[in-house]
Amino acid sequence: MYRAGIDIGGTSIKIGLVDDKLEIVRRSAIPFQCVGGEKVAAMIAEEIHKLLKQEPAIESIESVGVVVPGSIDKTQSIVIDAHNLGFHGVPFRAQLQAQFPSIPVYLANDADGAALAELGRGAFEGCKTAVLLTLGTGVGGGVILGGRMFSGGTGLGAELGHMTLVNGGEACTCGNHGCVEAYCSASALKRDGIRAMHAHPESMLCAKSGGDESKIDAKFVIDCAKEGDAVAKTVFDAYVDHLAAACISIVHILDPEVIAIGGGVCHAGEFLFEPLRKGIDKKCFFSEHGAIVPAVMGNDAGIIGAAMLADNAK
Amino acid sequence: MYRAGIDIGGTSIKIGLVDDKLEIVRRSAIPFQCVGGEKVAAMIAEEIHKLLKQEPAIESIESVGVVVPGSIDKTQSIVIDAHNLGFHGVPFRAQLQAQFPSIPVYLANDADGAALAELGRGAFEGCKTAVLLTLGTGVGGGVILGGRMFSGGTGLGAELGHMTLVNGGEACTCGNHGCVEAYCSASALKRDGIRAMHAHPESMLCAKSGGDESKIDAKFVIDCAKEGDAVAKTVFDAYVDHLAAACISIVHILDPEVIAIGGGVCHAGEFLFEPLRKGIDKKCFFSEHGAIVPAVMGNDAGIIGAAMLADNAK
Repeated sequence: MYRAGIDIGGTSIKIGLVDDKLEIVRRSAIPFQCVGGEKVAAMIAEEIHKLLKQEPAIESIESVGVVVPGSIDKTQSIVIDAHNLGFHGVPFRAQLQAQFPSIPVYLANDADGAALAELGRGAFEGCKTAVLLTLGTGVGGGVILGGRMFSGGTGLGAELGHMTLVNGGEACTCGNHGCVEAYCSASALKRDGIRAMHAHPESMLCAKSGGDESKIDAKFVIDCAKEGDAVAKTVFDAYVDHLAAACISIVHILDPEVIAIGGGVCHAGEFLFEPLRKGIDKKCFFSEHGAIVPAVMGNDAGIIGAAMLADNAK
Repeated sequence: MYRAGIDIGGTSIKIGLVDDKLEIVRRSAIPFQCVGGEKVAAMIAEEIHKLLKQEPAIESIESVGVVVPGSIDKTQSIVIDAHNLGFHGVPFRAQLQAQFPSIPVYLANDADGAALAELGRGAFEGCKTAVLLTLGTGVGGGVILGGRMFSGGTGLGAELGHMTLVNGGEACTCGNHGCVEAYCSASALKRDGIRAMHAHPESMLCAKSGGDESKIDAKFVIDCAKEGDAVAKTVFDAYVDHLAAACISIVHILDPEVIAIGGGVCHAGEFLFEPLRKGIDKKCFFSEHGAIVPAVMGNDAGIIGAAMLADNAK
């Protein structure tokens, strides 16, 4: 049995044919073009049929699942807002269903799909309760409850990046203040690195960037901290403390078996995870808690999570 | 069919016989004595048998459920810590089971039981996903997921009062800083009222208390705010803003159908709930969210939630 999994991003659409073991047996990518839902659906269908021709062993697919970087309505049918795709109120599930009239089509948010992929063959294998937190330009994530993808109690889903971390604190892109995203995103680490660079002309942050803000990003701050710059280390330590506090909120409401952290910041590896676990241990009300681990599905999370949507809907 | 529900508190043990409609058909209360689990279990059994004699229509009970103000182990059998009861590592389920060898006995945390009672015939009727937040000396609560009491992903349960609200902020009783409890408990409102009283000798807080800290509690601050004292109103507004931010964290991870607020602070009624809902609307990432309502089960929540444990375990 094979399923198609599709991961639509702002620059490319990744398409995969996925087998029972959740392996991607054939894949391709086409550029994303901002041409509206119907045309995007037609391009996807064309590409899937091309893949099927290339793989004659696969006679047919049993379902099509697609994940998008945006909010989905309660019926899991309409993309309410996906800014990178120019999709606003787009009935994308129906548009894709029109291309595949005889098999079921599913739609989900990409972070929810990524959490599902971790459940399928990643960090959440065998879990009933788990949370994925992705640290990128923003902070997203997905929640597994009862061994299934959780789409929110009223169907709105989770917005882990907009849980409160420092009420009244740093401005967030959402218009609120003090959200997790305003402290734990890669953008927040970059922001604090730039501030520290200006405040500390003696720092490596300043020497290595030549005072040029555009040269500073999250990786730059982490690299300076790794190389022993005290100023960058202070910025990074504060970042880790905030991330630990964000995890603590998740631990104290869901007590998950696993929290997985994904996104670019994770490339810091144990330089991040070791102090993060210590910070969580220190702040935790319980004497123990679930594991804190890196997400493992990486770039394939979208395709695999999308392919799993059919089973998750059962 | 009848069940016994028992709510053990630091001063009294409330016992009720509960029918199919979750009505307490007969009840009593006996003083709590700090005499250890076995003797407490024997006292409870004696009282239940007394109640059964008083109600000859009830031939037998089908289960015994008990809730305690403390942490329960993952097997729902041992009271790890219930400071008010002097119970530390007490195998209370087995001790009570020894008194009722032929029927099942269940044990839970009292806030979890209260959430279950709201599900049975209170604010959560018909809900799949709901959260109870109780604002008292501390902040507790319980989580309903999938239409059942949720005992945490690893069995540790929820500690909603120790989610992060202002990372690095006010000291909390748990040793951490900036917990929800450090801002949203009745104790926090009292603390901020006392501070404001000292800082503002011109305020009603000072005039009405005569500068006596011991006269100030949460209700006192709320009453002064209701009577129009600007200083007390500022303290109360900050309290409501923090409570809204705490609810926002819950909304953005679980998107519950209902959040119910219980505890003494709720007696403020719409003076609390109207600005609370506005604050949540303003901070919410979604354009809508579940209802924010007062808890309704009050003093009976413990007995009824305890009686419901048998069904919840099915």
